[in-house]
Amino acid sequence: MRLRNVRGANDIIEKSKYIINDYDNYKGKFYSLFDNNNPIHIEVGMGKGDFIIGMALSNPNINFIGIEKFDSVLVRAVQKLESLDIPNLRLIRMDALNIDSVFSHEVDCLYLNFSDPWPKERHSKRRLTSNLFLYKYDFIFRNECKVIMKTDNRKLFEFSIMSFNNYGYIIDEISLDLYSDDYEGNIQTEYEKKFVSKGNVIYRISVHK
Amino acid sequence: MRLRNVRGANDIIEKSKYIINDYDNYKGKFYSLFDNNNPIHIEVGMGKGDFIIGMALSNPNINFIGIEKFDSVLVRAVQKLESLDIPNLRLIRMDALNIDSVFSHEVDCLYLNFSDPWPKERHSKRRLTSNLFLYKYDFIFRNECKVIMKTDNRKLFEFSIMSFNNYGYIIDEISLDLYSDDYEGNIQTEYEKKFVSKGNVIYRISVHK
Repeated sequence: MRLRNVRGANDIIEKSKYIINDYDNYKGKFYSLFDNNNPIHIEVGMGKGDFIIGMALSNPNINFIGIEKFDSVLVRAVQKLESLDIPNLRLIRMDALNIDSVFSHEVDCLYLNFSDPWPKERHSKRRLTSNLFLYKYDFIFRNECKVIMKTDNRKLFEFSIMSFNNYGYIIDEISLDLYSDDYEGNIQTEYEKKFVSKGNVIYRISVHK
Repeated sequence: MRLRNVRGANDIIEKSKYIINDYDNYKGKFYSLFDNNNPIHIEVGMGKGDFIIGMALSNPNINFIGIEKFDSVLVRAVQKLESLDIPNLRLIRMDALNIDSVFSHEVDCLYLNFSDPWPKERHSKRRLTSNLFLYKYDFIFRNECKVIMKTDNRKLFEFSIMSFNNYGYIIDEISLDLYSDDYEGNIQTEYEKKFVSKGNVIYRISVHK
């Protein structure tokens, strides 16, 4: 990810009504932020927010929480949201590594979009579909564990198919070329727009256990 | 598959020393044809035989049986073999649908190369990785069930990943672009040569349970 410093980002982020600054107080009760008991879906590494904002607008009966560790992109999402009122969307500035200490048995679906592929074998645990992360996810899911992933990185996708399969996930949908399929309702991320315009193949998988 | 009638094919096939005409006599004891107890690997739909001949030559300590229902391609394999002496290779003219009535708990590995994709949903059971076929394979494997598949058909490959996964197979290797990987020892089929020269992506998966 190419990161640029954004002047005043920290302030802009902290003051946004979408940001949950005191997220430590909500473990196991994030539903209370939304005044309903609708399903909670999380995007891990939401970047500049196009996907999760689009999803939240299209699915008012689902609560969305985007998590992102980098101020430089999170601030862009916050700025886009300034003029919008989306009650079913919140954002958290955090590292995905801590996901199992922030959430507890309250999440219904995870989205992993164009995650860092960590191509070196010695970094493979850092991939968001490594055993380490799949293990963490076990502690945050409420009932069914559902993960939906998109990427243009072939090696990350191959790794992820095997990792989901080996961990006991059932594959519900898979596309090895999303844009050649007649797939309705796809919401693009910023990366996705760029990669598609370059002609890259986009992979998608949906799994549960 | 484009099939041409070959004059005298039936005679040529029946008289080949590689062909097991009386295969009904060997259920559960195909090892006896090879005078050893080496593993038995089967290619389902071996076509003109380039793959299985290459595999048999490269792996003298594995016994290979190719099965093929179409005379018009099987005769080409038989003709290639006329001048060769490969003790660890035999061929059977049969329909894969009968695989579980021909073999019984004696197979160690199955190869499915560029199988008919049967693209229509109502024909999906005919795909060699459908539940129907995976169920049949259960009866022919000796210990571990190992299946290795190559295809250039995206839809068949997507279907197969899901089918293996849902049936309880563990994915050991997967490549979504075999020719971009540094994969050693790949032996090409006739179709593969043609598809690669056209620039098609070749998919490969290796699974066990």
